Amino acid sequence: MTPGDSLRRLRDAKPLVHQITNYVVMNETANATLALGALPVMAHAREEAAEMARLAGAVVLNIGTLSPAWVEAMIEAGRAANETGAPVVLDPVGAGATTYRTETAKRILDEVDVTVVRGNAGEVATLVGVAAEVRGVESIGAASEPEELAREAALRLGVVASVTGPIDYVSDGERTIAVANGHPLLASITGTGCMSTAMTGCFLAVNADRPLDAAAEALVAFGVAGEDAAVGARGPGSFHVALYDALAALDPDTLDDRARTS
Amino acid sequence: MTPGDSLRRLRDAKPLVHQITNYVVMNETANATLALGALPVMAHAREEAAEMARLAGAVVLNIGTLSPAWVEAMIEAGRAANETGAPVVLDPVGAGATTYRTETAKRILDEVDVTVVRGNAGEVATLVGVAAEVRGVESIGAASEPEELAREAALRLGVVASVTGPIDYVSDGERTIAVANGHPLLASITGTGCMSTAMTGCFLAVNADRPLDAAAEALVAFGVAGEDAAVGARGPGSFHVALYDALAALDPDTLDDRARTS
Amino acid sequence: MTPGDSLRRLRDAKPLVHQITNYVVMNETANATLALGALPVMAHAREEAAEMARLAGAVVLNIGTLSPAWVEAMIEAGRAANETGAPVVLDPVGAGATTYRTETAKRILDEVDVTVVRGNAGEVATLVGVAAEVRGVESIGAASEPEELAREAALRLGVVASVTGPIDYVSDGERTIAVANGHPLLASITGTGCMSTAMTGCFLAVNADRPLDAAAEALVAFGVAGEDAAVGARGPGSFHVALYDALAALDPDTLDDRARTS
Repeated sequence: MTPGDSLRRLRDAKPLVHQITNYVVMNETANATLALGALPVMAHAREEAAEMARLAGAVVLNIGTLSPAWVEAMIEAGRAANETGAPVVLDPVGAGATTYRTETAKRILDEVDVTVVRGNAGEVATLVGVAAEVRGVESIGAASEPEELAREAALRLGVVASVTGPIDYVSDGERTIAVANGHPLLASITGTGCMSTAMTGCFLAVNADRPLDAAAEALVAFGVAGEDAAVGARGPGSFHVALYDALAALDPDTLDDRARTS
Repeated sequence: MTPGDSLRRLRDAKPLVHQITNYVVMNETANATLALGALPVMAHAREEAAEMARLAGAVVLNIGTLSPAWVEAMIEAGRAANETGAPVVLDPVGAGATTYRTETAKRILDEVDVTVVRGNAGEVATLVGVAAEVRGVESIGAASEPEELAREAALRLGVVASVTGPIDYVSDGERTIAVANGHPLLASITGTGCMSTAMTGCFLAVNADRPLDAAAEALVAFGVAGEDAAVGARGPGSFHVALYDALAALDPDTLDDRARTS
Repeated sequence: MTPGDSLRRLRDAKPLVHQITNYVVMNETANATLALGALPVMAHAREEAAEMARLAGAVVLNIGTLSPAWVEAMIEAGRAANETGAPVVLDPVGAGATTYRTETAKRILDEVDVTVVRGNAGEVATLVGVAAEVRGVESIGAASEPEELAREAALRLGVVASVTGPIDYVSDGERTIAVANGHPLLASITGTGCMSTAMTGCFLAVNADRPLDAAAEALVAFGVAGEDAAVGARGPGSFHVALYDALAALDPDTLDDRARTS
């Protein structure tokens, strides 16, 4: 399996990816999911979260605009996915910025069997107890190098840790994959971190047995789309639009050659 | 009255269209409403839903990210519209996917006098008890042909049924109008179904006495805008942007000639 | 200090601007904040609103899709900002349209020390008790001239009043600044009022000691971006996209020459 194989499989299977995510990016992650080739569904009420999760190929939990009722639904959806064996991806948005975010991210990790944690260095460092500076939902820095941080987070949290930044590091504690795809314009719009989490859910949905590689492949695909979208972009607005075009235009036949992993 | 006449009337009257809709598409349906020429307002708190609905030319209820408090507000807004005589449009997003969605859509139909139900084949089939497959919020298929389904839904639910797909069918049980306008790219972005529901609300707001024709005219207008937006689109992102430009540029003088209805 | 100086300062400091705003525009105001050069964060749960506000350079409260729990969080965030001395900007979206909106806007003004109220003429007129017509969230008209209204609102409410329209008027009761920058296309998309409120928060965050001038400078910057975005726009969709590009491309060196203030 390669990134191109995974993308091909994803577009054939069109897996349903259930996302309980934040208000800011809900449209964006749904459209990125569709553009990539999977089917998004958003459902956050406790009355249906577990039922919807049981239908899904993967569940994405994102605490970007959390509140108590949503957190309960996230936990119920995550547990339902655990029962069906569908992978669960957690995006601990803003962990480290407020106590509520940090505690909630830890609680989800305690109560749900999370497959992949996708966050920036500050967020992931917070979860493993490494000193970090988080400003709102932006990572300013962490005491560890991100590669070491990914490895440590994987071991301590018992997950695949996907730490994104200028270079992304994805680790299961034993093996760590560096992904150098991407473009600085990705940092110029809100929600690209959340989109990369959604993309991770899409790739996991058709690769439940190989989460480390699938999480890295998702970042390759998203990074390559970012590179393509940057061509001709005149700023964050036109880049944002081109990013959906680029996700839809991703070519499985050339994706492997464009992967910058090590 | 023709589609062009209705659009002209809508742009003159600029009706207020009160929408209680889902988080994913709220910005999109508001902008589509504005681009078409009406005034959107979103208000979901029970403290004001009925009061706002009483000011509106039409009320749009969309259960795409439903939760109990929102459902109560939808019912209160719908009833307030029934008192003033403003048309009510229901979008039963994901009916058939979870019990909660199916039950809620049925409850709204029971407690509110709904003018038009706008949904995909799977959602509408669910409401009339025809076997259907709904995957998240996507319709995979229904046991009836969509034309027959629209007629049956209209008769059984006592509404104008607007079943959208490659060809749309709008029926009041006696007369069924087929609308062949549109473009495959409309299926490539999230929320175009919800937008077509909002457009239906806009056209109904200035045509309360002829809901069947107005619902079909809304789909003609939205479909023609989709056709225009597809010209030069490089993918779902640029298509999405061009869709608003195209809605704003819709020309009442040429709309009738472009309608593909039968 | 000039608009260009303020923009330069903002981009150097990258202040965190905490926004409790409405569902319709959350992505839009976050992206506008980022494009301008500040850091947005959205956090509305009572469990963290005050804690997040204490980290922020400014707090923006926007009642566009209000509900009781959100209003409580707004008040807690506003009071926390009052403790740290961070400016608070209130956008009374739809005040005058429903009793709940009018009462909530007044309650926030009572319980929080608001630095700037940014609204349209109808909303601001409602708050000062001047006859006005508000249709949904659109201002149809007010009995006072907007310049006089801004002055009166500033005096009666004890705030800087920023009344936007074809010409904007910003007043502290003693001095009133007119801003003629902007473009009619800004009225063609939803959320540009909310974006101008967010921009006001950004400029206030680095100018807490000069709120009148900073509020006017924010409208200059946003208006100039609107003028730039209109060049080549084919309608509301392409204008919307170009607006983010234009905000990011704003040049502090030419901004002062382009300001049309008096």
